[in-house]
Amino acid sequence: MKAIIFGSIAFDAIETPVAKTDKIIGGSGTYICFSASYFVEPQSVCAVGYDFPEEFIKKLEDKGVDLAGMQRKSDEKTMFWAGRYFDDMNQRETLVTELNVLENFKPILPDSYKDTEYVMLGNLHPALQRSVLEQMNKRPKFVALDTMDLWMNITMDELKKTISMVDIIIINDEEARQLSGERSLPRAAKVICAMGPRYVIIKKGEHGAMLFNSDKVFVAPALPLDNVVDPTGAGDTFAGAFLGYVAQQDNTDFETMKTAMIVASAMASFTVEKMGTEALENLTADKIKERVLKFKELTAFSL
Amino acid sequence: MKAIIFGSIAFDAIETPVAKTDKIIGGSGTYICFSASYFVEPQSVCAVGYDFPEEFIKKLEDKGVDLAGMQRKSDEKTMFWAGRYFDDMNQRETLVTELNVLENFKPILPDSYKDTEYVMLGNLHPALQRSVLEQMNKRPKFVALDTMDLWMNITMDELKKTISMVDIIIINDEEARQLSGERSLPRAAKVICAMGPRYVIIKKGEHGAMLFNSDKVFVAPALPLDNVVDPTGAGDTFAGAFLGYVAQQDNTDFETMKTAMIVASAMASFTVEKMGTEALENLTADKIKERVLKFKELTAFSL
Repeated sequence: MKAIIFGSIAFDAIETPVAKTDKIIGGSGTYICFSASYFVEPQSVCAVGYDFPEEFIKKLEDKGVDLAGMQRKSDEKTMFWAGRYFDDMNQRETLVTELNVLENFKPILPDSYKDTEYVMLGNLHPALQRSVLEQMNKRPKFVALDTMDLWMNITMDELKKTISMVDIIIINDEEARQLSGERSLPRAAKVICAMGPRYVIIKKGEHGAMLFNSDKVFVAPALPLDNVVDPTGAGDTFAGAFLGYVAQQDNTDFETMKTAMIVASAMASFTVEKMGTEALENLTADKIKERVLKFKELTAFSL
Repeated sequence: MKAIIFGSIAFDAIETPVAKTDKIIGGSGTYICFSASYFVEPQSVCAVGYDFPEEFIKKLEDKGVDLAGMQRKSDEKTMFWAGRYFDDMNQRETLVTELNVLENFKPILPDSYKDTEYVMLGNLHPALQRSVLEQMNKRPKFVALDTMDLWMNITMDELKKTISMVDIIIINDEEARQLSGERSLPRAAKVICAMGPRYVIIKKGEHGAMLFNSDKVFVAPALPLDNVVDPTGAGDTFAGAFLGYVAQQDNTDFETMKTAMIVASAMASFTVEKMGTEALENLTADKIKERVLKFKELTAFSL
């Protein structure tokens, strides 16, 4: 099965209380693609500059990522983000954001992507997210959307228009509260479902994630970890594995969403154990299965 | 089965964003006794003043609470606490604390309590908690301890001495971090287990609770609720149901602890839906069972 992954492929420089990197491969699209690649063939839609190294292209290709939708601009530089995490790694500050090639980016879908049934719209401008959908030959079977407070602050109308077109929205607790105007997360989810999506996932970082539809709820814990090294990309890893698993199963019912949440949580738990994409690049089906089983142990009880 | 409940029985006056009470029955011991009473016969160890109404005594007796260990002082007033919750009900401010009868309180165990096998030491001075244990005829089968940051700040040595004598400690995430000096909760739990207890429960409010022993971990979610009316006593309700269920099963293995966590979470979810002890006073075995089953729905997934 194939899945379109719309998201940035970029350079990151990361500093956490326990480690530091130079410019490494990053961006939401990278994490989503790597994570989804264990379940489906990701079709990337993105743009990079002349400075993006062949070595990183090869890393993506080695994971089976289709780069037909990658625009390589000879006159622009690749996006670059630098950030530093505080001792409480739930908090970080952005040191540098250079949009570069993403400044005037317009996604262009190759014909070979236009009949794909599963789509992940990573966190970019909602008008661009929508333009991906508008280029499809027909409405895909399942569209997932990530977004952030920035778009709510500067272009809420565009965002709501895009939200109305997707099947699931994957956001964090504060974003859910801002989008809905409700403090209570179950009430926030109801308001967001009324905007269009069948499902809402609310991510709570180390406290796990919650899945809602109009009348049901499911909670997935985060795996308690002794050593968190770098939280960068955990949310994107979650999104990629979630969409990837759903596409692999080719089933969009609530039961499948639940298992996808657990698989996604397991994948995210790998990402935070190493810097950048390192853990995510080196997984195996066995390692993933073993980690997913830990979630059974973590949550199963007898009555 | 019987269980000793050491904890304050007091007056509370509560203000939340949605409701307000005059002086009602409160105190950690009250919530713990009410909650435990659905599983065992609670034996209360506490003190109240001349102003404590017969009507409240009757409420406790109606729930089967043994008051042989209640000291009724004719020259002192009952403890009184008043507090106000903010819009974010995870935050509250204390408006009034009058210790009154608890100022010079020394717990005295009636002979009829001295062979009880299960003991809940509610959040009072660690030296008083220990004096309860020292009055027992023999070491009980299972002792649970609640405590708070105040005792860590003013009498850490006493607290550690008491902690070394119990089987399980039930505290919140910030308290676990303070007690252990570790930010990571799994590492905090390991440090606390090394202080003596076989098990550590770390409560995270609306994010649920985690159970650790030296090598295993289990997470119980909190039930996502549309309407939280009053968080007062949620933690004590949890502790009371937890200890009550374990005593009822008369089994202290990890599997029993897990189910007890779920039962405790279910009971706490009732408490926060009404003001004070109102919800907790009016439960039935059927309502409890139905609520516990919701936790299966909430967490079960297929692989």
